[in-house]
Amino acid sequence: MTHSTSTIDEALQRYRQEVNAELSRLMLPQAGVPDRLLESMNYSLLAGGKRMRPLLVLLACEACGGDRRLALPAACALEMIHTYSLIHDDLPPMDNDDYRRGRKTNHVVFGEALAILAGDGLLTLSFEVVAREVQPPEVAAWCCLDLAQASGYAGMVGGQVADLEAEGKVLGTIEELEAIHRRKTGALLECSLSLGARIARGTEEQRLALTHYGRCLGLAFQITDDLLDVRGTQGATGKAVGKDAARGKQTYPSLLGIEASQMRAELLIAQALESLGMFGERARPLETLARFVLDRDH
Amino acid sequence: MTHSTSTIDEALQRYRQEVNAELSRLMLPQAGVPDRLLESMNYSLLAGGKRMRPLLVLLACEACGGDRRLALPAACALEMIHTYSLIHDDLPPMDNDDYRRGRKTNHVVFGEALAILAGDGLLTLSFEVVAREVQPPEVAAWCCLDLAQASGYAGMVGGQVADLEAEGKVLGTIEELEAIHRRKTGALLECSLSLGARIARGTEEQRLALTHYGRCLGLAFQITDDLLDVRGTQGATGKAVGKDAARGKQTYPSLLGIEASQMRAELLIAQALESLGMFGERARPLETLARFVLDRDH
Repeated sequence: MTHSTSTIDEALQRYRQEVNAELSRLMLPQAGVPDRLLESMNYSLLAGGKRMRPLLVLLACEACGGDRRLALPAACALEMIHTYSLIHDDLPPMDNDDYRRGRKTNHVVFGEALAILAGDGLLTLSFEVVAREVQPPEVAAWCCLDLAQASGYAGMVGGQVADLEAEGKVLGTIEELEAIHRRKTGALLECSLSLGARIARGTEEQRLALTHYGRCLGLAFQITDDLLDVRGTQGATGKAVGKDAARGKQTYPSLLGIEASQMRAELLIAQALESLGMFGERARPLETLARFVLDRDH
Repeated sequence: MTHSTSTIDEALQRYRQEVNAELSRLMLPQAGVPDRLLESMNYSLLAGGKRMRPLLVLLACEACGGDRRLALPAACALEMIHTYSLIHDDLPPMDNDDYRRGRKTNHVVFGEALAILAGDGLLTLSFEVVAREVQPPEVAAWCCLDLAQASGYAGMVGGQVADLEAEGKVLGTIEELEAIHRRKTGALLECSLSLGARIARGTEEQRLALTHYGRCLGLAFQITDDLLDVRGTQGATGKAVGKDAARGKQTYPSLLGIEASQMRAELLIAQALESLGMFGERARPLETLARFVLDRDH
């Protein structure tokens, strides 16, 4: 296949559809699962979204020469964890958000109790899917470990706590801010790449290059997120604009200014692209994805 | 070793201490984990308690001729999941409990946001511990799958949703009530036995006999729990008494009466003991534990 940007855009769109189809398959009704619980889980999980983490799993798998179909369940597991974190973060005692991706948040529709449990269910299901569907079992165990470390108390959960604690406080340095983002959002993005490489049985060198790409991409993504909060419109992002400032949250633009933030994002994307060097043609879609992060308007 | 009841009591006490020591080891401060988050997780996890699930893991391992030290991390993982479920169940939108095991509940001490995140952290950590510490990795993957199924949307989380939905409604039959308990508390108890058998590399026949024991034990445990809510005192159980009735929750005594409930518990324990037949002497401690369920006053 040629790798013009439009061809890659079409491929990414197709991969996204594959992910959505696999998610629907994994989320069918089954014995013992209360209807209302499944409905609540599906409300948030099947709401669309960029499917960034699943795409990274599939593309990392292909970059290492693997068959992306084998990585589809793990790709879905990443989206489940991401979705659970959004449901819990939106709860009234946390960020207290009523809208997400342009729709009412889970707890607004289903109530707080069910929202908490839907999040718990999605988190748990992600491990079930990886443990059951990734083959051989040895690789499944490594993937479970990656996933747990990335999303746990030293990863995403720890980052969310640090983020809550930082609210309204003055962070001295950009390093403190990045330490939060690396855990809160970066760890899971890195993990996506790692799982794709593991499932493809890539070399450890390949896996580390891809997770470095993921780390740079994650930070760049956060910067552009912060920039969109300053410059975006509610129509494009589907969420309220200017909330960070209203909450007294420190962001890249508030610490560095808009221009320096933009430059930092560009530098990070350049580093991300650099670590793709060893993969040649197979990494073109990951390159496109990295460039998209700089240009995104939502 | 001889198997008089007092010897077994001492052994169980020693095993409990081993579990507590392993939990403390696993929960040491580490880079990237916010202090307050770890404190909140430890507040509930290291609060004592019967350590029933960890004991079942260790005893199932020994019943199959395995070395219980190899099962200690998995035993702790079970306690982490159990603890996370208590923290989330106690939250105001759920059971809204202020006391647990005679102490203030997590959210009363740390606030709701941190309680939710401490629960998330414990759930995730349980998979991290199993994926990292159970050997070989193949067995770790099976254990992760057991754990996820038992605690997920068709297991414990599903049971909690069904339980919330049943509150204030009239359940027609004892079967409906048992279907809730099998998921809400039974699945995790069964899972404890399964993990012990897997780590000991027991036969599938042994594993199934042990999970059947766990299933009977779990239901019997629930019945005696319901009976204690009717007959117990706050001093012994460390929680308020008569709460089930006050909430309009249906229980074994409310559906069957006290005497028939007691008989049902005895029958279940007899069945539990029967499935231990193939293990001979090695299952004496599991027998003692089953008898303890009938006699417990807290």
